[in-house]
Amino acid sequence: MRTLIENAIVLTMDDKGHVWQDGYVLFDEEKILEAGEGSCGKACDIRIDGRQGILMPGMVNVHSHIPMIPFRSMGDDCPDRLRRFLFPLELEAMTPKLVYAAARYAVCELLLSGVTSVLDMYYFEDQVARACEETGIRAWAGETVIGQETCDSKEAYGGLELCEDLICRWRGHERIHPLVAPHATNTSSPEMLKAAYDLAEKYQVPYTLHVSEMDYEMSYFKEKYGKTPIAFLKGLGVLGERTVAVHCIHATEEDIRLLAETGTKVAHCAGSNTKAGKGICPALDMKRAGVCVGVGTDGPSSGNTLDLFTQFKMIASFQKTRYHDRSAFPAREIVALGTTGGAQVLGAEKEIGSIEAGKRADLVLLETESVNMFPLFNPYSAVVYSANASNVDSVWVQGRLLVQGHRLTEMDLQEERERLWSEMSEFKSLAGKYQDVI
Amino acid sequence: MRTLIENAIVLTMDDKGHVWQDGYVLFDEEKILEAGEGSCGKACDIRIDGRQGILMPGMVNVHSHIPMIPFRSMGDDCPDRLRRFLFPLELEAMTPKLVYAAARYAVCELLLSGVTSVLDMYYFEDQVARACEETGIRAWAGETVIGQETCDSKEAYGGLELCEDLICRWRGHERIHPLVAPHATNTSSPEMLKAAYDLAEKYQVPYTLHVSEMDYEMSYFKEKYGKTPIAFLKGLGVLGERTVAVHCIHATEEDIRLLAETGTKVAHCAGSNTKAGKGICPALDMKRAGVCVGVGTDGPSSGNTLDLFTQFKMIASFQKTRYHDRSAFPAREIVALGTTGGAQVLGAEKEIGSIEAGKRADLVLLETESVNMFPLFNPYSAVVYSANASNVDSVWVQGRLLVQGHRLTEMDLQEERERLWSEMSEFKSLAGKYQDVI
Repeated sequence: MRTLIENAIVLTMDDKGHVWQDGYVLFDEEKILEAGEGSCGKACDIRIDGRQGILMPGMVNVHSHIPMIPFRSMGDDCPDRLRRFLFPLELEAMTPKLVYAAARYAVCELLLSGVTSVLDMYYFEDQVARACEETGIRAWAGETVIGQETCDSKEAYGGLELCEDLICRWRGHERIHPLVAPHATNTSSPEMLKAAYDLAEKYQVPYTLHVSEMDYEMSYFKEKYGKTPIAFLKGLGVLGERTVAVHCIHATEEDIRLLAETGTKVAHCAGSNTKAGKGICPALDMKRAGVCVGVGTDGPSSGNTLDLFTQFKMIASFQKTRYHDRSAFPAREIVALGTTGGAQVLGAEKEIGSIEAGKRADLVLLETESVNMFPLFNPYSAVVYSANASNVDSVWVQGRLLVQGHRLTEMDLQEERERLWSEMSEFKSLAGKYQDVI
Repeated sequence: MRTLIENAIVLTMDDKGHVWQDGYVLFDEEKILEAGEGSCGKACDIRIDGRQGILMPGMVNVHSHIPMIPFRSMGDDCPDRLRRFLFPLELEAMTPKLVYAAARYAVCELLLSGVTSVLDMYYFEDQVARACEETGIRAWAGETVIGQETCDSKEAYGGLELCEDLICRWRGHERIHPLVAPHATNTSSPEMLKAAYDLAEKYQVPYTLHVSEMDYEMSYFKEKYGKTPIAFLKGLGVLGERTVAVHCIHATEEDIRLLAETGTKVAHCAGSNTKAGKGICPALDMKRAGVCVGVGTDGPSSGNTLDLFTQFKMIASFQKTRYHDRSAFPAREIVALGTTGGAQVLGAEKEIGSIEAGKRADLVLLETESVNMFPLFNPYSAVVYSANASNVDSVWVQGRLLVQGHRLTEMDLQEERERLWSEMSEFKSLAGKYQDVI
């Protein structure tokens, strides 16, 4: 079954920066067969008029905790919320059923906003993998390893065993990729950070953790080791091409050199970092040093929405402000972070991230008929500075049409919401305990 | 004709911070008659089910150049764009017809995103006033006064006379309020800044100008007068309750004291300031010092979209980051900036900005059925951190229903776009001259 989209502005995001103003893309149920300018001339089964919309690669969200949908709009402005209510409420309230229902709901939001690949880390991660498998999105799913009791393990570090189970269950899957996800530099012991890395090495899967995010994390490493967390991780031997270091807000010049030297990747979450008042990751210095950087939304409790459009604006504004330079990180480079950059972070740059023959058919069509999308002198600018999630018209993952005309084709949003709301009844009553902070 | 909206979460934005969880608002073609919790019990002609959406005061955009829609997505990342292509292209290409068509299109965008009041400053401002009058939005319209030839005046400062004409034509209008708009501290001579202020005093209208925005502006005032621009304006006698100082990015502690002491208002344009890499206005210090602060999008060439949701997220993230404090500027205070704050900036706080009996019926209903709006523990958080313009379901200005079910009721967007596109043909060809920078 071959689909041809024509009459679209195609942002290929290929190395040469091709933009086909009157472009087409031909693909089957797996791969992109051909992309170019003008008329295709090949046979197809389905022909779609792009109506001069913007056709771009499916976006890649490299850091989230998607089952945290139930926490959205709760205690957004509360200082130290992680320890004051997030950790305790997660421990008490999260169940496999709730994680599953929330993950399904989150996939609706991801797809509707043009995200076709997501890296998730949470608890009961097998439920997340299952939700992603069923719904058609591409996912990298990591079980959290942490030195405390969690909702899915009475024992500290129980996540390590759960993680191995997850890997054994899902490895080799076409769309669902298991990985290892220790929580953070300071919530797992050095030994367990290393054990988790060894597990990732054993199965040749990615390794991701929160790094250089918290003030108290920075002072802890300085006091205890006289090092930054990144330098400490280097010494521990857990930096490298399979490592996705999340946040890296407080990365120093030397840290950036270490990230570049080891090939460690960075998940940049501008929205959640700055909404928390934590600071601005030096993403531009990282790019200049040759570090692979992708875009993460963080969980819906931290970043609130799971779309990359919100992040694109934040990244542009914060990087330009940090460097006091309007020309820093122009729109094209921001779109690259959310597409090819994300693909590189996941080590999947041969499969996804750009529109080129042979790559997976993960595609997003933005309509340009809405009021905010006119005029359209520079399509990269429109994507970064004007668009929002509601401009996403159609989405394909691996050639499968999952969003059409702004609506899910295979899921019923209302039904997913009702299922989640009904799973949330215990969660809501437990949340009441923290009413003074949320 | 009385309309009753019921079954909505009503964010009144009144002084007591009332939120009616199961609220209603009753209004006629002019004013709000009653708002409260539960069922109203009064007779009405139209009854609207709010479907547990968020009903809030119409938003107030206190700084824009709405006829600059033709420039959107053009040269966004170009340094010194004002002098490199914006000023020259405006001079050559803007005509009364183009300003009128662009202003009408911009009103579509404002209304569709829940903005019911806008302060605009541009050229051919009478055309802007006309477009706003016809389309039903509430507007404050100021003719730009500047020390150079403009598209509507061969002579430098010709705007002063045009501005007096504008005032005489529109003053006393129910919805359209003329004002005086010198361009900036450094683009008009001190004498003309004062003459413009005298004009504003003569007719008792507001006075607005760009202040403390540019690096070269700051160094110019320091070198020439040994003062900040704000201190200079104070000495000139043009600060005061009718003055809306736009941007104030580089305001010092002493500047903030002067703004507070004189009752000068501030239009905070977080998105455009930071996208330009210019810096972060100390809005929190201003609020603490008692300065009235409202939210501006700036023109569609600078801020790209005219909705306040994009600005809300930017303000939250930048203020929290500036002050390294997650609890700084909580969501409720951000919503207040865009409603009551904007009303105060315009000196219209008795008329608009909150949902209270006796105020103008300027109302916005956000639907909460879209994927990004669930769950809804804190409606202020949902407005600031989750919502975007596409969540605006219905909009009333002075009791007149202008948006319903996400669509304009009295205008045809497609028609407005076609009219504007056809007026843009000369503009497009002239823009070609600047292709190297845009």
